[in-house]
Amino acid sequence: MPQAPVKQRPIWLDTDGKTVKIIDQRQLPHQFVIEDLRTLDNAIRAIKDMYVRGAPLIGATAGYGMLLAALNAPEGNPTGAYLRREGQRLKAARPTAVNLAWAVDQTLAAAEGADDKIAAVRTAADAIAEQEVENCRRIGEHGLTLMQAISQKKPGHPVNVLTHCNAGWLACVEHGTATAPIYAAHDAGIDVHVWVDETRPLNQGARLTAWELNRHGVNHTLITDNAGGHLMQHGQVDIVIVGTDRTTCTGDVANKIGTYLKALAARDNQIPFYVALPSSTIDWQITDGLAEIPIEQRDPDEVRWIPGHTGKTTAQVLISPQNCPAANYAFDVTPARLVTGLITERGICKATLEDIKRLFPEK
Amino acid sequence: MPQAPVKQRPIWLDTDGKTVKIIDQRQLPHQFVIEDLRTLDNAIRAIKDMYVRGAPLIGATAGYGMLLAALNAPEGNPTGAYLRREGQRLKAARPTAVNLAWAVDQTLAAAEGADDKIAAVRTAADAIAEQEVENCRRIGEHGLTLMQAISQKKPGHPVNVLTHCNAGWLACVEHGTATAPIYAAHDAGIDVHVWVDETRPLNQGARLTAWELNRHGVNHTLITDNAGGHLMQHGQVDIVIVGTDRTTCTGDVANKIGTYLKALAARDNQIPFYVALPSSTIDWQITDGLAEIPIEQRDPDEVRWIPGHTGKTTAQVLISPQNCPAANYAFDVTPARLVTGLITERGICKATLEDIKRLFPEK
Repeated sequence: MPQAPVKQRPIWLDTDGKTVKIIDQRQLPHQFVIEDLRTLDNAIRAIKDMYVRGAPLIGATAGYGMLLAALNAPEGNPTGAYLRREGQRLKAARPTAVNLAWAVDQTLAAAEGADDKIAAVRTAADAIAEQEVENCRRIGEHGLTLMQAISQKKPGHPVNVLTHCNAGWLACVEHGTATAPIYAAHDAGIDVHVWVDETRPLNQGARLTAWELNRHGVNHTLITDNAGGHLMQHGQVDIVIVGTDRTTCTGDVANKIGTYLKALAARDNQIPFYVALPSSTIDWQITDGLAEIPIEQRDPDEVRWIPGHTGKTTAQVLISPQNCPAANYAFDVTPARLVTGLITERGICKATLEDIKRLFPEK
Repeated sequence: MPQAPVKQRPIWLDTDGKTVKIIDQRQLPHQFVIEDLRTLDNAIRAIKDMYVRGAPLIGATAGYGMLLAALNAPEGNPTGAYLRREGQRLKAARPTAVNLAWAVDQTLAAAEGADDKIAAVRTAADAIAEQEVENCRRIGEHGLTLMQAISQKKPGHPVNVLTHCNAGWLACVEHGTATAPIYAAHDAGIDVHVWVDETRPLNQGARLTAWELNRHGVNHTLITDNAGGHLMQHGQVDIVIVGTDRTTCTGDVANKIGTYLKALAARDNQIPFYVALPSSTIDWQITDGLAEIPIEQRDPDEVRWIPGHTGKTTAQVLISPQNCPAANYAFDVTPARLVTGLITERGICKATLEDIKRLFPEK
């Protein structure tokens, strides 16, 4: 990983080799704040309180979080037992994110048997981040073929993509997952327009995806999460592309709450529904997403209170009666039968065990 | 209509006979403000800027709006031509609301040929409001049978209803439409729990339905619009009941944007999806809701800015980048094929022309 980012990344290791820098994504789009992480607990808080979010970035943060753990070992050179213990604490920060556990295990495997465990963890953490960048670049390359095919069928008209939440470079180190085909198409000169779901309760679409697309110069329109079905009924969506936090090897997709509703609307209107993902997001152990993927419940205040900017200052507003009972499920599971295809770093496949194994025969 | 409300209503004629009182629903749940309407333009603003909303209440407000027009006629006793002209202006306030045009036409018909046109319009306006109350009472009576049937199948467990937007008494003078079966069941001693969709962009669920249910003592939980599909997948919803702004005589239902997505999720999970409506909401002229019902687009600032209460004061917060392009479709159309049944003042029917005509053979 470069010591200073050439393009903006949402995470990088500072030149001192001991400080991990992140963009505090809770403050976007109103403020652009860089935060320093110096301890594992800093990294856990950054993941738990969503300074960083998105499966690949959580993986990259976990890798560097393990480096911070190693650097702060009480004995100087950390023991394997110490690292495993710290890794357990880190894994508990967000239970749904499969990349978190995966990245922790990668660094532990690298440290095992290494004399200089700090150097081994650093190399592994850098490799995780660079691998995410390369995976997203390839997802963009493969997804581009879908965008080209749509564009060729409607010359003179934009390709209308609908996306939910933020699966952009902010979530992924570079390129993004769901946004990778969008950026690749835009950069290839295809006229692209993106319908951006605001993505309640935390508004990652309104705050992050809109900010990213604007920065990249991609045409976009913010809509409420309620609007996508109407747009699909009226021919205003050509393709839906979303990311995922965990995908079963049978093609069930856990993603931000509300994704399932868009998949239903896409099927009802014969619109292709694609999920873009690095294979690190595939859970090879489970086959029934609805029954087996635990769905986090977060603080109900995220439903009752909405943060934003008054024009003068950042503020939160209560949108309901005070102490209104509220529930806050963070994800839902879209069954494989509603998924047209998965866009992975190795190509596009159907959301079936057979076709996923065709691309990943070693699993 | 009583000169002073016995139960709280969202609209009533003041004791002076010249002032129409309304609850300014934009300020709920943070403030309870009564607003005076003294002219037709006051009434138009109240409808357009959503001091009042909901099909039946818009109808009642239109009736009293015509009374205000009549009272303020430049010649004293208004002419038919003057009233028709003012009626046209009033009808333009919200094009999707079929009750608005219906109520205006009711008052015009009453005034035609009457010597005292003011008295005739007043009587017609009172009758519209009282008719809405009686219709909603009967909708509750018929809907109660559905609630009883569910309750009997799961003794010891609450009947879980999901509703979208606010089709409560705030929208309807008394009882509400979608809430009428809920209140009737609660009052009959059935254990009811309501999942309240917040209903972006204007949050009528979070602001109004939650406030109403709390005031009535009905158990409820606020959720984001994204969450309903997940709840239905996991058996946590027994029935969906929503209102409607306009329903075709073939059973297509125009309601608050996002309703269609809930209907899709209900079908995918074999959950009954009912629409509660007074027959004044049925449009007997059109048969294809998707093609023929005009969908209002409202100010994009309603998507970008969210009003609420900071704890100290009411405030609006920007949730997106400044000047982010945004689109704001107010309604969507749920095709009849996704609707289990319509709960009307004359009973429950299927969402088909044949079955609707069975209940309304005179149409």
